[in-house]
Amino acid sequence: MKKRWKITVEYDGWKYHGWQRQDNVPTVQASVEHAIFAFCQQEISIQCAGRTDAGVHSFGQVAHFDLDYGDRPLTGNDLMKAINAHLRPQPICVKAAEEVNDDFHARFSARNKYYRYRIVSRSAPAVLDFGKVWHTHHALDIEAMQEAAKPLLGTHDFTSFRDSECQSKSPVKTLDRFDIDICDYDGMGTKEIRCHVEGQSFLHHQVRNMVGTLAMVGQGKWEKEQVVKALEARDRTKAGPTAPADGLYLMRIDY
Amino acid sequence: MKKRWKITVEYDGWKYHGWQRQDNVPTVQASVEHAIFAFCQQEISIQCAGRTDAGVHSFGQVAHFDLDYGDRPLTGNDLMKAINAHLRPQPICVKAAEEVNDDFHARFSARNKYYRYRIVSRSAPAVLDFGKVWHTHHALDIEAMQEAAKPLLGTHDFTSFRDSECQSKSPVKTLDRFDIDICDYDGMGTKEIRCHVEGQSFLHHQVRNMVGTLAMVGQGKWEKEQVVKALEARDRTKAGPTAPADGLYLMRIDY
Repeated sequence: MKKRWKITVEYDGWKYHGWQRQDNVPTVQASVEHAIFAFCQQEISIQCAGRTDAGVHSFGQVAHFDLDYGDRPLTGNDLMKAINAHLRPQPICVKAAEEVNDDFHARFSARNKYYRYRIVSRSAPAVLDFGKVWHTHHALDIEAMQEAAKPLLGTHDFTSFRDSECQSKSPVKTLDRFDIDICDYDGMGTKEIRCHVEGQSFLHHQVRNMVGTLAMVGQGKWEKEQVVKALEARDRTKAGPTAPADGLYLMRIDY
Repeated sequence: MKKRWKITVEYDGWKYHGWQRQDNVPTVQASVEHAIFAFCQQEISIQCAGRTDAGVHSFGQVAHFDLDYGDRPLTGNDLMKAINAHLRPQPICVKAAEEVNDDFHARFSARNKYYRYRIVSRSAPAVLDFGKVWHTHHALDIEAMQEAAKPLLGTHDFTSFRDSECQSKSPVKTLDRFDIDICDYDGMGTKEIRCHVEGQSFLHHQVRNMVGTLAMVGQGKWEKEQVVKALEARDRTKAGPTAPADGLYLMRIDY
């Protein structure tokens, strides 16, 4: 009898061409599916909550799949360990697995997605976190960025922050949170700027385009009013650049 | 005219056979010296505050060297950028450089050294931090570890926590701090245990041997009294195993 499983997947996106399976390039989805096949010899297609792009990391990606394991007992812990044994030494792991009802869907059941974006602002490169943070030489005015983020909250047509390859039916999304805080990156006062972004769903590149645009304000190149104008223009060319994939982490999916 | 420079060096120790220059293997010292040579064509030997072992990381290593740059102007910022340009793309950078008095010595002038040790305790591997944390399957009792660390504070003969290759004249050292705290590793409740260790100087492998010993207490395999017995025995075989290099960071040197 088939049972539906929910897995939480952590990965270092640096070496992968994103989540989604593609021909001839390494992807997170293909690695996890291969590991499941190695464990139970079943070719299973897994469905994730939010496809991440090449280079984007995850602490909390969620996926589901149906598995017929016959009458043999299988706990979530067993399944997690079995998949992880076959993922090793790749920088991907299953950190939790649990049986769920048949109507659970990783993507459609998701109520909320939480992304975090990390920026290290200093002259020297962030050598301990190559590929894991956006390193910028510019000093960033965090208060100005936080102020400029406010008009993005709520329900809007986010066309200006939408990648041309976005497949979403509608450009209208609801942004529930865009908080920015600072922590001490290295215990010596180097600023790490963290953007905490939440909403039920996002357009392709929306988080990175919002971060890239707000960074223009943080650098003093844009007034905060320009962010509002960019949003209202519904034109990708009117917003700022796309922030690099390096700093983006899918943190958590709520159901 | 020669001037003395103090530099603060950050590195990912994973690919290096430690700080100290050796024949035919990559070391942090050799990389920095090569970068200085590439910048000014002078073969300079740099002296660090505390030599780190293979695989150990640094956010705050300090080194000094004397450089004759003639009458040309050279600021700390210039020097930092020039060395970093030649270090790229290696995971080493100079994060600060300043001119100091001739009597400054990175090692002998150091008043205090601060090391941090990171442990991630869970079943799944810490794939986003391969080589950057000690991943252990064991649950750790932090309060028991903190309690067991107390008798190590102060001035003692640390022979039981000293590597056989240690070149220190005396095994007597003063441990000023061994604090343990917990933070949320992944924003989803995975425990990251951080040991904060300070003192003027340490024996070879002393921090890793103390962490490995206290982890025995944290795992419930040792009573805290065994740590006292191990210390008093002045015998390396009586203390616990050496914790892996992966989790250790030289955080800061105070002068």
